[in-house]
Amino acid sequence: LEAEDDATVRELVAPLHYADIADLIETLGSEDRARFVRAVKSVFNAEILPELDDAVRAEVIEELGFEDFAACLREVESDDAVYLAGQIEDEDERATVLAKLPAELRAVIEQALALPEFSAGRLMQRELVAVPSYWTVGETIDYLRSGARLPDEFYQIFIVDPRHRPVGNVRLSALLRARRPVRLREIMDPKTAEIPITMDQEEVAFLFRQQNLLSAPVVDASGRLVGRVTVDDVVDVIDEEAEDDMFRLAGLSEGDLFSAVVDTVKSRFTWLLLNLGTAVLASLVIGLFESTLEAVVALAVLMPIVASMGGNAGTQTLTIAVRALATKELTAANATRIVGKEVAIGLINGLVFAVLTGAVSWVWFGNPAIGVVIGAAMIINMVAAGLAGIAIPLVLDRLKVDPAVSSGVFLTTVTDVVGFFAFLGLAAVFIL
Amino acid sequence: LEAEDDATVRELVAPLHYADIADLIETLGSEDRARFVRAVKSVFNAEILPELDDAVRAEVIEELGFEDFAACLREVESDDAVYLAGQIEDEDERATVLAKLPAELRAVIEQALALPEFSAGRLMQRELVAVPSYWTVGETIDYLRSGARLPDEFYQIFIVDPRHRPVGNVRLSALLRARRPVRLREIMDPKTAEIPITMDQEEVAFLFRQQNLLSAPVVDASGRLVGRVTVDDVVDVIDEEAEDDMFRLAGLSEGDLFSAVVDTVKSRFTWLLLNLGTAVLASLVIGLFESTLEAVVALAVLMPIVASMGGNAGTQTLTIAVRALATKELTAANATRIVGKEVAIGLINGLVFAVLTGAVSWVWFGNPAIGVVIGAAMIINMVAAGLAGIAIPLVLDRLKVDPAVSSGVFLTTVTDVVGFFAFLGLAAVFIL
Repeated sequence: LEAEDDATVRELVAPLHYADIADLIETLGSEDRARFVRAVKSVFNAEILPELDDAVRAEVIEELGFEDFAACLREVESDDAVYLAGQIEDEDERATVLAKLPAELRAVIEQALALPEFSAGRLMQRELVAVPSYWTVGETIDYLRSGARLPDEFYQIFIVDPRHRPVGNVRLSALLRARRPVRLREIMDPKTAEIPITMDQEEVAFLFRQQNLLSAPVVDASGRLVGRVTVDDVVDVIDEEAEDDMFRLAGLSEGDLFSAVVDTVKSRFTWLLLNLGTAVLASLVIGLFESTLEAVVALAVLMPIVASMGGNAGTQTLTIAVRALATKELTAANATRIVGKEVAIGLINGLVFAVLTGAVSWVWFGNPAIGVVIGAAMIINMVAAGLAGIAIPLVLDRLKVDPAVSSGVFLTTVTDVVGFFAFLGLAAVFIL
Repeated sequence: LEAEDDATVRELVAPLHYADIADLIETLGSEDRARFVRAVKSVFNAEILPELDDAVRAEVIEELGFEDFAACLREVESDDAVYLAGQIEDEDERATVLAKLPAELRAVIEQALALPEFSAGRLMQRELVAVPSYWTVGETIDYLRSGARLPDEFYQIFIVDPRHRPVGNVRLSALLRARRPVRLREIMDPKTAEIPITMDQEEVAFLFRQQNLLSAPVVDASGRLVGRVTVDDVVDVIDEEAEDDMFRLAGLSEGDLFSAVVDTVKSRFTWLLLNLGTAVLASLVIGLFESTLEAVVALAVLMPIVASMGGNAGTQTLTIAVRALATKELTAANATRIVGKEVAIGLINGLVFAVLTGAVSWVWFGNPAIGVVIGAAMIINMVAAGLAGIAIPLVLDRLKVDPAVSSGVFLTTVTDVVGFFAFLGLAAVFIL
């Protein structure tokens, strides 16, 4: 199908939802993707762009060219336009695109891009409905019907004071149920969560999730209402937040499914290099006991078991801790209790697995001393794993370092070093 | 503060948002928690319950007792009542609570609980606004104002045909902007995504995220409108979905931060036991080469490096694959291409780290043969890791097994076995 016939492609694509077209573009290979974009260029739906994976979008934008891309920016809502323009990393290219936009939209985009990335200001839409609290329901509905410049879709009406500061909000369902002469101040909810324009998007997501918000007002430094954040944008942030932690724990900077091979190799390299460092450190520890190993080669056979069990038990604790820090369930208030709990779990699991591996090793090598040594090392390493698994992310978080990014390397270092040292060290003392 | 003075506690808690009180309850220790619930029992806000972690909620419900818990179920919305009632696992206890409810609510809950867990039917609210398409905007607003039994909050008006099947929906913002004589069919969006009552909640979340929905109609087997799913419930599902995958990759059945030590030990035990199996398997492979190790003890020192690097590289690929399967970015259509890409990445990384580790090992032990052997083993294991990291989740997914739960064990088995076998095997052939 993709071979030649552009008209057929356009016909096939026409009835699809823009999100489905985005998914379709993502599944295509690079060449097919370019050919597809060329085919549908004339009928390209701007809404497709925000839905695409970063690497794929960059290819599509390149294929569209500056002119068509600028046209797309004009079509989408202001928050999406800001997001898309922010994706162009080359300053000159971005200037070229912005120059093709109407002055007003250009100013909005430039202002927003001046704000820190991942802030509420980047996420917000400027289009909103704000009215004073002394208006009646009737006046408000007439205003909405007047076709004044309003957003395409809105979920709430923001109530502002004379200085344009938000004082409350009225849900549309409440507005529709009230009679025309009722004043807005009577039906408004005065407890509006305000979002400072510089608030980090993860904080915004936390607030939305915690309070089940649909949209919330964004205010500038002087408290004036300048925009609104809506739940559909927050859904994307929430989704990315857990995903990011998951990726970082595995040493990935971001989802790279659609990136080119070279970019992927580069992005994964650093983590692997760090792990090589850890592995070499573990080898150095083993090297201390070369003579012990020479004497009892069974130790070399068994030694990965202790390190591997510690690593796995530690990763369980670490994953819980990283996620709990992200969702603010783990705080200074309960940290001590959770640390105690994880150490207790490490001790119990250590005892259970000490008996198991000790028995297996005894039978395997017919030497009870080896069984006792591996059991004791298992207990030590499981307790160390539990302690490190919870303490490392807590300390990193206190030092304002993202625990998801770096905890894993530290943890493996601890469980490898403690595991090999305890096992081989105990063996050197008690078996030789 | 918590010592005695219940009145003060109530006073301090009174101005807080229910979500904040829920967070507060979570951070308390078990004893303080019980004391806190007893203190605020008389003024307990039912909205707190859905916000709590499962283990914490069970404690709070126990402390509240059947009578007060039943009162809470009457206060919350029907979807929350279904969810809360579903959390009581003991059938008799649940029957006792349900018996205290009005017949209508009891019927709703019992019907919903008969549906599979994690289905749209469990997630939906029964309260909704549904009107025929021939109504005008004016009639609709008058109906809403009439105070007919309507949900507390609604985001859309569902348009139904005479057999109560959904044919479209009208956004409240569109309703508010239209003039009174306009018929709903003129402003309705006919492309409504319908959700079958048995649809899995992850599918529901995918649909909401893909199409940026606020609420969607739920239909029964005959296509009749029976409820609606709203975005605030879906936000929780989306949040849990990525979190679940993250936890499962680490061998956790669920977040157990607030569980008792014994429960946590039990839930983590199975995974650790599986990993012990893998570790023993790796040891058996090493055992094959005891004589080689006895001859060249340097091999024992270096051998964890190859296995560990393969494990880490494989985990990177695995994490990407598991997440991409969950978000439907990795499909049959692009699987072959992605497998090829991951193998290529494994090969490139393998070459780079082969040179690095080879050089380090040569210098360390002054033996070029060891350097060559470890380098060759590194390339073999990195390619195997890339291939296994993508192929294992793909195969499990094809077999309808959740790849997040079980991929990790298989992957470690592959990278350990291949790593040790390649390194020691090559050494046995070329160094001895």
